[in-house]
Amino acid sequence: MKLATLNDGTPDGRLVAVSDDLTTQRACTDHTFQAALDHDRLVPAYEERPFDARLCAAPLPRAYQFLDGSAYVNHVALVRRARGAEMPGRFWTDPLMYQGASDGFLGPTDDIVGDPAWGMDFEAEVAVITGYVPRGASPDQAAGAIRYVMLLNDISLRALIPEELSKGFGFVQSKPHSACAPVAVKVATCPGWRDGRLHGTLCVDLNGAPFGRVEAGEDMTFDFPTLIAHAARTRSLGPGTVVGSGTVSNRGADGGPGAPVAEGGRGYACLAEQRMVETIREGAARTPFLQPGDRVRIWMDDADGRPIFGAIDQEVRGT
Amino acid sequence: MKLATLNDGTPDGRLVAVSDDLTTQRACTDHTFQAALDHDRLVPAYEERPFDARLCAAPLPRAYQFLDGSAYVNHVALVRRARGAEMPGRFWTDPLMYQGASDGFLGPTDDIVGDPAWGMDFEAEVAVITGYVPRGASPDQAAGAIRYVMLLNDISLRALIPEELSKGFGFVQSKPHSACAPVAVKVATCPGWRDGRLHGTLCVDLNGAPFGRVEAGEDMTFDFPTLIAHAARTRSLGPGTVVGSGTVSNRGADGGPGAPVAEGGRGYACLAEQRMVETIREGAARTPFLQPGDRVRIWMDDADGRPIFGAIDQEVRGT
Repeated sequence: MKLATLNDGTPDGRLVAVSDDLTTQRACTDHTFQAALDHDRLVPAYEERPFDARLCAAPLPRAYQFLDGSAYVNHVALVRRARGAEMPGRFWTDPLMYQGASDGFLGPTDDIVGDPAWGMDFEAEVAVITGYVPRGASPDQAAGAIRYVMLLNDISLRALIPEELSKGFGFVQSKPHSACAPVAVKVATCPGWRDGRLHGTLCVDLNGAPFGRVEAGEDMTFDFPTLIAHAARTRSLGPGTVVGSGTVSNRGADGGPGAPVAEGGRGYACLAEQRMVETIREGAARTPFLQPGDRVRIWMDDADGRPIFGAIDQEVRGT
Repeated sequence: MKLATLNDGTPDGRLVAVSDDLTTQRACTDHTFQAALDHDRLVPAYEERPFDARLCAAPLPRAYQFLDGSAYVNHVALVRRARGAEMPGRFWTDPLMYQGASDGFLGPTDDIVGDPAWGMDFEAEVAVITGYVPRGASPDQAAGAIRYVMLLNDISLRALIPEELSKGFGFVQSKPHSACAPVAVKVATCPGWRDGRLHGTLCVDLNGAPFGRVEAGEDMTFDFPTLIAHAARTRSLGPGTVVGSGTVSNRGADGGPGAPVAEGGRGYACLAEQRMVETIREGAARTPFLQPGDRVRIWMDDADGRPIFGAIDQEVRGT
């Protein structure tokens, strides 16, 4: 079962159940995804109509909570190294997580709007949507609360991050709204879902050229149940909580940062990592951050080469 | 105009318009506070019924965003000093703000539930609820987007904060759900609202004894329009965004941390500050953090001695 939200001009849009091949849709008894999550049910109508992903908002156009983990610790190590910040060793055992902006997820084809001086970057991630999670839930309980899986572009403003994080209270200005792929997939029927992780190749194209072909099921130090249990240690999580994996990031065969796609490597799910590799090898980053007119595409195919979640396909625009 | 949400067993409750003296209520065309904010309207019915604050949830039982500032920089300076952390000088000019949990605000009389080992503390704050705020809004534009004013108890787990903040991503485990006073007041008619601040004595009782009588209009380094503009620098804010002031905190007449109410001072809006003063004076904190059975009451009276927002009145319970 797949779900999408059609942009009908209202803040929460209109929920539809979408066929596995993303060709047809059915209306649902609950008009919004949040209502379906609140009721913990999904009741699609019988009648089918053609589905057009271009009409989609984010599956949850706004959510009551977005908690973004950094489960691919390799990414944290690289990005910290790039900005000359130390990474404590316990980051390999104690999940890093921040409370993100959830009041307005961008739709899959919404522009990324910002000032190029902010150092705009994409971060291709996997995210899950939970039902209610009680305070103190174990990872096993948390696993049972995962309802849907989706893809997310966690847009990051690299030039603002060092100053903001040095204040110690996390991200506000340096992480604007994230974008979502059109379709959220019910966890029980999601291709590649096992062991609390999504297994599959997360594809990132930049301006039509392959930039990342990273394996979402590898190098994920903390699985989703662990991330959710971490978040729920001292409080319950409401239904419709979005929990992100953090930028998918693989180590190279030698344990190092791997290589760009153009050199036969898997590439990267954000610009910052490629810039880091350039810095290590050449003494300086060569790849610029996002500029107006740039286009970022993020998707994951199933075993038959069909996109599981549809695609995030965003153009960058200056403020 | 005052608004409250009756707890009717649904996640968003039932919106009512409440008389200024908190004795009667009227149903509203929009059933939920969020819907009224989305439509930017308030249409109460003619018929009046008795109002009972004991039936109230938080005015917004769940919101799409909670951004909590630290506008009373004096508080930040004291709390940092208490945990031996440096405070950078720019904290007096660059607002400190974190993205908080908004997926479930506690109602005014809901228990504070936690493990006493977490170092549970209250933080009495002022908060505003905004309409839509465009990206890049100026403080003047932000001022025009403030819709309602309310009181908030930002429950803080002091024993978990140093470790979590040292990871650099802000609060997740150490700031569980905040509680709200029963009634939100329309900003244009809110007693004491001027200059982007709420002027009035914020009262805190601990176990029936006065603990804080702090002036919310004094020592607020950043007014609400400045806090909102800070949050909206790189992204818009959705309608129903809750922006908190941070713990209200006054300096003493000598510029120092003031004195407890029992010694004729204004006291404090959180335990951490009183503990800090004890540490400075006596070498160690004497006041314990919250224990099961403790009761915290937070409110603000108008010039006639009537509570403007009703009262937060919570009992502490162990997990």
